[in-house]
Amino acid sequence: MAGYIPPIDDISFLLGGVFDLDAQMAALPGFEEVNTDLATSILEEGGKFCAEILEPLNRSGDEEGCTLEDGLVTTPKGFAQAYGAFVDGGWAGLSGNPDYGGQGLPRVLQILLDEMLSSANLSFGLFPGLTRGAVEAIAHHATDELKQTYLPKMISGEWTGAMALTESSAGTDLGLLTTRAEPRGDGSYAIRGTKIFISSGDQDFGGNVVHLVLARLPDAPKGVKGISLFLVPKFLVKQDGSLGERNRMSVGSLEHKMGIHAQPTCVMNYDGAIGWLVGEPGRGLNAMFTMMNAERLFVGIQGLGIGEAANQKAAAYARDRLQGRSPDGARGPVPIIEHADVRKMLLTGRSLTEAGRALAVWTALQMDIATRHPDPEARRTADGFVALLTPVVKAAFTDFGFEIAVMSQQVFGGHGYIREWGMEQFVRDARITQIYEGTNGVQAMDLVGRKLAMDNGDVVRRFFALVHADLSSANGSAEFESAKGAVTEALVRLEQLTEDLLSTSADPMEAGASATDYLRFFALVSFGWLWVRMADKAAASVPTALTKRKLLLARFFAARLLPQTLALEAAIRAGATDIMALDADLF
Amino acid sequence: MAGYIPPIDDISFLLGGVFDLDAQMAALPGFEEVNTDLATSILEEGGKFCAEILEPLNRSGDEEGCTLEDGLVTTPKGFAQAYGAFVDGGWAGLSGNPDYGGQGLPRVLQILLDEMLSSANLSFGLFPGLTRGAVEAIAHHATDELKQTYLPKMISGEWTGAMALTESSAGTDLGLLTTRAEPRGDGSYAIRGTKIFISSGDQDFGGNVVHLVLARLPDAPKGVKGISLFLVPKFLVKQDGSLGERNRMSVGSLEHKMGIHAQPTCVMNYDGAIGWLVGEPGRGLNAMFTMMNAERLFVGIQGLGIGEAANQKAAAYARDRLQGRSPDGARGPVPIIEHADVRKMLLTGRSLTEAGRALAVWTALQMDIATRHPDPEARRTADGFVALLTPVVKAAFTDFGFEIAVMSQQVFGGHGYIREWGMEQFVRDARITQIYEGTNGVQAMDLVGRKLAMDNGDVVRRFFALVHADLSSANGSAEFESAKGAVTEALVRLEQLTEDLLSTSADPMEAGASATDYLRFFALVSFGWLWVRMADKAAASVPTALTKRKLLLARFFAARLLPQTLALEAAIRAGATDIMALDADLF
Repeated sequence: MAGYIPPIDDISFLLGGVFDLDAQMAALPGFEEVNTDLATSILEEGGKFCAEILEPLNRSGDEEGCTLEDGLVTTPKGFAQAYGAFVDGGWAGLSGNPDYGGQGLPRVLQILLDEMLSSANLSFGLFPGLTRGAVEAIAHHATDELKQTYLPKMISGEWTGAMALTESSAGTDLGLLTTRAEPRGDGSYAIRGTKIFISSGDQDFGGNVVHLVLARLPDAPKGVKGISLFLVPKFLVKQDGSLGERNRMSVGSLEHKMGIHAQPTCVMNYDGAIGWLVGEPGRGLNAMFTMMNAERLFVGIQGLGIGEAANQKAAAYARDRLQGRSPDGARGPVPIIEHADVRKMLLTGRSLTEAGRALAVWTALQMDIATRHPDPEARRTADGFVALLTPVVKAAFTDFGFEIAVMSQQVFGGHGYIREWGMEQFVRDARITQIYEGTNGVQAMDLVGRKLAMDNGDVVRRFFALVHADLSSANGSAEFESAKGAVTEALVRLEQLTEDLLSTSADPMEAGASATDYLRFFALVSFGWLWVRMADKAAASVPTALTKRKLLLARFFAARLLPQTLALEAAIRAGATDIMALDADLF
Repeated sequence: MAGYIPPIDDISFLLGGVFDLDAQMAALPGFEEVNTDLATSILEEGGKFCAEILEPLNRSGDEEGCTLEDGLVTTPKGFAQAYGAFVDGGWAGLSGNPDYGGQGLPRVLQILLDEMLSSANLSFGLFPGLTRGAVEAIAHHATDELKQTYLPKMISGEWTGAMALTESSAGTDLGLLTTRAEPRGDGSYAIRGTKIFISSGDQDFGGNVVHLVLARLPDAPKGVKGISLFLVPKFLVKQDGSLGERNRMSVGSLEHKMGIHAQPTCVMNYDGAIGWLVGEPGRGLNAMFTMMNAERLFVGIQGLGIGEAANQKAAAYARDRLQGRSPDGARGPVPIIEHADVRKMLLTGRSLTEAGRALAVWTALQMDIATRHPDPEARRTADGFVALLTPVVKAAFTDFGFEIAVMSQQVFGGHGYIREWGMEQFVRDARITQIYEGTNGVQAMDLVGRKLAMDNGDVVRRFFALVHADLSSANGSAEFESAKGAVTEALVRLEQLTEDLLSTSADPMEAGASATDYLRFFALVSFGWLWVRMADKAAASVPTALTKRKLLLARFFAARLLPQTLALEAAIRAGATDIMALDADLF
């Protein structure tokens, strides 16, 4: 089985070619010294770590799984050691705040490292991924004392983080949660309750596990307004920063899951565990969303990473596996990559992952602009784009990632169904990304119900204007003229649909009925936009294997995948009436 | 967790209402006494067996799996007993030939029983399913002596059957297989080779396991023309019909699979096992296709069954699970079935399974006509329709089944990813149906490359003419006028596409590039046709919950799902050029 190959060529084409990283970074104080060469060489090293250390543990981790014995979690063989090497290599703190010991590199590098982590070992990647989410929440909302105590060791990776939100009757609807927090009179709180589905809820890497727990203060109002966020560490921290006694919290059991078996997904019991408030009382959801938004992007990138890895393996297999005759019947057996149907599956995967990577890079650049740009207006605009794109990246990337995993498994025929080949693991692992951190249906509602309405629709209009401008300025050589035309046409239809939705956004049923279809439409147009940008760059470059592929994939995407927008538009136009008409007991 | 409810109401609506079973059967000698009442009461009993005996073993079978120790296969707890009850109840021989002890009931009953078996326990259903395929091949191609020896006990279910085709380097391309058969001088052959992926390759139910094995005779030409089919029993059969000594064949190992864990999928070693030729030397593929076609329909029905079961569970969960507020914000928490996005998933599932069931019944009726109709022309026409629809039923039903399983899992949110709830098992089990008995890509090539060309295109034209006639004769009341119009319009586009493909069918690259999209288009139009037929019947009936749902689903399907044909058509029209252009090493 071919090993994972980090997509460094494509990364370098995106950073150096399409997005002109050097110029972008030059405009961001603190990032001036980051350029394509530096970024590429860091990511090459990161990719090597993923391919050499993490990928070899992916299948064994799946087979072995995690165990819980006498309250102690054991991760699969090799995981603790690999995690140690990850921390020692400085990978945990890549984009971390230098004030707390991080390396302070831009998000654009982080997101590309995250992709490679996810390609190599999704279960492993969740440890640093969740830690970073917890860091964001603490950095934005916690007291200085908590920051000083926790951030340096979390940013270095010595301690890990977890988000404890869900309860068995409170998932999407967190307003229903019942975990309680009682003041202990010394500024701390005693947390009591049970949480489920807690990824990275515990580990055996050594170090602390810092839980951010949603709970209710005494006499808090019902619903979401009564929820506060608490920092609850596995080990209490002594004055000198070293680990003290165990907090009153324990892993009740490990969830039995479809996939990500190397992840200890915990049922957590808090039995009067000591915690500290993060942010204001009753504003827990607000603080949580800081961490949740970071996680949502991360999960989208997981979908991208798994799609890339699965597609790579399918292409390698298709080059090797001999079955059937050449289309003209003259030669046989031939590698199955000569069969049109197999090619179509592989090209579909590639055209989605390469556009996804481009959109990921663009979105991460917006995050960097939103944090560092000297012009507040530029920061505000970029921030709006990130908010708009977050549900799109989360839902579309994970839907595509799952679809690509399934298609790549299909390329293997019967062997794809056999565990030894590893393809079915991609499918099982990818599946969770469509569900956790807010199901993809919730993401779509966020896009249609909340994000479109930002600034009375001006954020999304600004985004469309930017896409129009890029499409117009692309040269549109004969090699991708048809693609440019098709994307422009789809964009115009999306704009109309958006205006129509904005004018009916008061009707939550219409929004709900159209949301998932609209989000996919939005993603396809965004991908088309970036295909035109990539093709434009490729056409203007010295021809190489990569530029040739880019031009072909741009045409393939526009001709074969973008037309899905026709079906999505028709479905959206069908409206909500029939969907809402049937009595619940007739389903 | 709600249990599986056999869809008897819908079955009765289809048989008694839409398809007028009584009149159909009256025209078929030997089936005159079959009517809707009889059929429904038999299927009610069969459904009870599935729900009460087989479904309770579905999850435990998945958890426990099969084991191989000292060459002996053990199926999960309860399977052997359930199989005994299945045989004792006469379910194995439902549609079996009465000359060999079968009950001789029509295929239309068999296919509906198969759906319920697949809903309740896919792994279990493969035992009788594969036995029936082997029976077909023996009945059509074996000598009288073999028929007398094997058919009665296989039709009763006392003995089971298996198809041993695939080898590690010969899957889709059976021409590459290397298993050998040498004459032993007494009319029997010694079979030597290793086969993989052999479903039901062994069992612990008692009785024989009759393998139909593809192998090469000495000096046979290379490729498919050198392949013959052999009957190779696990136990040699004595003169008196009782079981004699073990044949020289053994289970080398059990495959480790993504799903259908309760199925012992075997690597089989034949070490000079004694076998008998079935059909003529070198005509093995021909004999195999008799069994394969039966299996392909069966596998399609598996997709239908699993979609139905998954959708049922999702609807039940959505009625129970309280999360979020009503669309107007006034009430909360409400059952999630009140949310438009959840409804859309459930309606998508239902509109696909109910149309699929209708197409399954229609196809099975064509099989009954093809076997029993006194008019040879009617038999020939029906036979052509079955051949045409076989790849559509196999591929589209299993693709839809998988998609519905995924969507139904999504309705459960995080709980859908947890094994205890059983939803992820549907996804894992459904996945194999898209792969085995010819991948869905192979089915699509069969449709586009072979089936469309039957009688120079007259079979498919006759099918379209029939659909047109049905659409015209439907009353088209206001309740489904829009659906009728949309289906007719899509049919006209499909006809044009078909003519275009027929005129370029000499170009295998164009066929390969368009095949999977074309097959889905074909399936969607066929489903639309049957939705109009069902809506027409519903509109003309006394209004009930069922007729109300039928009318709504017809509109939903036409407005929300049929537009996928727009995207599929555009993709097909994009042609093969770009797909074939990229060098293999650039993928």
